[in-house]
Amino acid sequence: MSRLLAYLPLYSWLKNYQRDSFVSDMVAGIVVGIMLIPQGMAYAFLAGLPPQYGLYAAIIPLFLYALLGSSRSLAVGPVAIASLMVGSTIADSTARGLGDPVTIAINLSLLVGVILILLRIMRLGAIVNFMSHSVISGFTSAAALLIAISQIRHLTGLNIPSGGFFTDTFSYLLSNLQAVNSATLLLGLSGLFTLWFVKAKLCCLLERSPLPVWLVQPVCRAGPMFAMIVGIVLVASLQLEQSHQVAIVGAIPEGLPTLSLISIDLQLWQQLLTPAFLIALIGFLESVSVGTTLASKRRERIDPNKELIALGAANLGAAFSGTYPVAGGFGRSMVNHSAGAQTTIASIISALMVVITVSFFTPLFYYLPKAVLGAVIIMAVIPLIDVKSFTDSWRFNKADALTLLGTFAFVLLLGVELGIMAGIAISFILLLYRSSQPHIAVVGRVGDSQHFRNIQRHDVATDKHILAIRVDESLYFANTRFVEDFIRAQCASHRQVEHVVLICNAVNFIDASALESLENLSVHLQSQAITLHFAEVKGPVMDQLQSTRFIEQISPGRIFFTTDEAVRELGLGDAEVYEI
Amino acid sequence: MSRLLAYLPLYSWLKNYQRDSFVSDMVAGIVVGIMLIPQGMAYAFLAGLPPQYGLYAAIIPLFLYALLGSSRSLAVGPVAIASLMVGSTIADSTARGLGDPVTIAINLSLLVGVILILLRIMRLGAIVNFMSHSVISGFTSAAALLIAISQIRHLTGLNIPSGGFFTDTFSYLLSNLQAVNSATLLLGLSGLFTLWFVKAKLCCLLERSPLPVWLVQPVCRAGPMFAMIVGIVLVASLQLEQSHQVAIVGAIPEGLPTLSLISIDLQLWQQLLTPAFLIALIGFLESVSVGTTLASKRRERIDPNKELIALGAANLGAAFSGTYPVAGGFGRSMVNHSAGAQTTIASIISALMVVITVSFFTPLFYYLPKAVLGAVIIMAVIPLIDVKSFTDSWRFNKADALTLLGTFAFVLLLGVELGIMAGIAISFILLLYRSSQPHIAVVGRVGDSQHFRNIQRHDVATDKHILAIRVDESLYFANTRFVEDFIRAQCASHRQVEHVVLICNAVNFIDASALESLENLSVHLQSQAITLHFAEVKGPVMDQLQSTRFIEQISPGRIFFTTDEAVRELGLGDAEVYEI
Repeated sequence: MSRLLAYLPLYSWLKNYQRDSFVSDMVAGIVVGIMLIPQGMAYAFLAGLPPQYGLYAAIIPLFLYALLGSSRSLAVGPVAIASLMVGSTIADSTARGLGDPVTIAINLSLLVGVILILLRIMRLGAIVNFMSHSVISGFTSAAALLIAISQIRHLTGLNIPSGGFFTDTFSYLLSNLQAVNSATLLLGLSGLFTLWFVKAKLCCLLERSPLPVWLVQPVCRAGPMFAMIVGIVLVASLQLEQSHQVAIVGAIPEGLPTLSLISIDLQLWQQLLTPAFLIALIGFLESVSVGTTLASKRRERIDPNKELIALGAANLGAAFSGTYPVAGGFGRSMVNHSAGAQTTIASIISALMVVITVSFFTPLFYYLPKAVLGAVIIMAVIPLIDVKSFTDSWRFNKADALTLLGTFAFVLLLGVELGIMAGIAISFILLLYRSSQPHIAVVGRVGDSQHFRNIQRHDVATDKHILAIRVDESLYFANTRFVEDFIRAQCASHRQVEHVVLICNAVNFIDASALESLENLSVHLQSQAITLHFAEVKGPVMDQLQSTRFIEQISPGRIFFTTDEAVRELGLGDAEVYEI
Repeated sequence: MSRLLAYLPLYSWLKNYQRDSFVSDMVAGIVVGIMLIPQGMAYAFLAGLPPQYGLYAAIIPLFLYALLGSSRSLAVGPVAIASLMVGSTIADSTARGLGDPVTIAINLSLLVGVILILLRIMRLGAIVNFMSHSVISGFTSAAALLIAISQIRHLTGLNIPSGGFFTDTFSYLLSNLQAVNSATLLLGLSGLFTLWFVKAKLCCLLERSPLPVWLVQPVCRAGPMFAMIVGIVLVASLQLEQSHQVAIVGAIPEGLPTLSLISIDLQLWQQLLTPAFLIALIGFLESVSVGTTLASKRRERIDPNKELIALGAANLGAAFSGTYPVAGGFGRSMVNHSAGAQTTIASIISALMVVITVSFFTPLFYYLPKAVLGAVIIMAVIPLIDVKSFTDSWRFNKADALTLLGTFAFVLLLGVELGIMAGIAISFILLLYRSSQPHIAVVGRVGDSQHFRNIQRHDVATDKHILAIRVDESLYFANTRFVEDFIRAQCASHRQVEHVVLICNAVNFIDASALESLENLSVHLQSQAITLHFAEVKGPVMDQLQSTRFIEQISPGRIFFTTDEAVRELGLGDAEVYEI
């Protein structure tokens, strides 16, 4: 029992839990709760589910994460990108007659939870490392853009067919401008205005006012709530849903979600496996990266293994409360942190606010216009469109920038699933391409030190009989021919060379193709009275070479401990050793 | 004109061409011709085409290669593996009603030729380097096995359905044992026996006899020819095709192929593009690797760029003579070399022998039993099954061995096309996996030298305030977390450390993910009063870092020229610097 408790991060935090900490958690929990209620409804909507499912996803999963999670301030619940992915899976699966949206959502949650826990058990959490920063950044920006575009339908009241190419939305919009529901559009714009006004103007005013922080904080984050109130009041007072056919949320069932039993449907699971895997990976990655960022601000660290379990449990909780997958969201986690959350008690407070809402206040949302939910979604995803990452990586590394741009383009063109897979493929191919044409330097001695550097960058001394070549890459199938050609060309243009020393301090492994190529090279050079030597071969590579007959085969070529030693020994017997 | 001539390797060879050389070429050409005629017919048969197409593929393509090729002894023509690939493409395409076998074969030749020439023009010949030795070896062995199994049908006279899984052949064989045509089986076995006898017994006897080499050489290689003669004589004399329904080749049209015009069929080309690309790559790779091996025996080298053009032209020649793709074959090239071929004049001699055969002798093949052609194919591909490569690579490098085995298994399970693509994917994934968990060493000073080596492998001196860590891999998305975790763990277990020096002599590039991770690491260590420094950063990486604000951000951490310098400067001010 005590070992189990020791596993729970919350238990260790509560040991030193003070009254102050609880007040902080309380404020942060309320602030996040105020955002969570409108966002939950809006994201459910984005996933193609009735709004209450977004609220259900903000109860049991939050309690489970609060218990098991290793991040003090990660705010778990329905998030934008996972909602988009669930939405596209639901649209796809219902079109193929695999079941109703809610059944598919529940099964997705179950699979996501199981996959995350399996990744922990199989110690494969490191798999997320194969998605590079650039792939994630390109993916996130493109997904945010797709989400924003998908809301045009709700802001205009137009029945834009979903599932097509993203430009279809614009062409439909342009050819049906006369059919735009102006009341809906005005409600949407008023929602956007309210959100912008609260965030950009009201908040600044209040922060400069003498009002206490515990009051300013919740008001600043209440933009979505205010937008909803404005929308509800306008629709209800002017009866816009009747006079102007404004689409409203309508009746939401009151009460907590009932625990559901999930039936085993192997055929459905097979169909949902790939999307569930991607939702699990993206959700885990988003949570870990936000969690790491926030933890490092406190000079702490989160434990990715515990996160796998905590997020897995949260998703199983989502499945059993009959709703769709959850993750740690970017926006609400940032707010949770800056509002002062000390522990996951804050999440429990947020969840309790949702419990109160679904228990008593759902009738208040009857007149809530869908256009306002669209506005809430758009304002939430705009910060995810990240142009700076692109400009930064363009300056630092063109391959990263290309990966980012490629992923962005493929997500827009092929959709989220195929798009991210294409992005990962691009990052792999560029990596291989880079290492297939490695940097190779001819080096010389720096002054009279034991160090050797590139003759093109440093003022170094070389021996005309010795060619010291450093290959800045492991030797393997994709670059072995390139390296061989370089060395042959160098030998051809330095006629006095008698010894070639291949400096292997950057060679981290040698594969079978490269081994064969080096043997051939050694034989070929020998025929021109040139001996091939090696220097600074690393321990693991040396072990590998010793398991073969390589060392005999390159004889009289030798393997030197250092370049210095090689050049000293091979240069002996020659009076005029160095020429600068 | 003279520049054009200078481009042709044959032209430079003929400058020093002697009577002796011509005699050597003549003998080699005849020896290869004796093999080429039966093999050509057999391989056409493997490709699903009438036997004469194999002979047509051995005329114009050989002349073109002789003119343009850079290998003195590569024997171009119909080859086993390309024939298998063509056969599977033809079976697939005719099943989908894309045209008759010959049309598909011609279009494949055309596409293969165009692809090879385009690869030269686009300077993309290096693309073959992405197929590792292990992928090729696994592929070749599996393809050879599939070829041998496919001939069971002809050796038994059973109508085994083609195109299925390779084990289907055995289950069909076992459940239809009573239907085996015993006369066909005996003919096949007599063919196998003749081939084995000539190669293993007769040849040894003759070599030890006082007979001249120019007589022994052709006889030794005439196994397939003898097997054909034995088969023809047996069938014709016993009328086995009537009394025992032995399948025979039948009437082969006499005369040279007529030059054909190829109609443009974009839809067909689109379908054939992937197989043509793979046939081109595999054919090019096989030719270059055989050519390189043979050239290195003469201490020469072939020019892969010229090979792309020469093989491209040879395949266009195949298309215009109305037949299927060619490549440089392993077996006949070896024979050509060991029979003494000096230049590609030998190939012209072989082609002339084929010309004479198709012009006058095709009626002789009327009674040739298909079982004998099957035996010829089986004996030709058995040497391609390469178990030694597997055992060698298992000892040297497990990843290579797994790639080889994986490719072998996938080719058997999925067929040649998907199989080789799966093999390439395996080799890429293993490569990434390896670099995602790089070798990391904590290093210390060797004696009082300027060199630093792994503390676990060498007797070195370390400073307890300085942790010098060498990462043996470039820093990028797949390994950045691994490296960060290693350094944090080391710092946690060495409480007295004040400086961490990351030695980057094996870091060939740093991507955006790794850059961010290093910045975070620097901030995190700073919070524990540890400073992160770098040493031995290479020129290209330094250029990259200088394009960002990284160097300011890691301050007070510094970038040292050498590890020696770093340890000397950081260790100053401490009396008891070194502890062994």
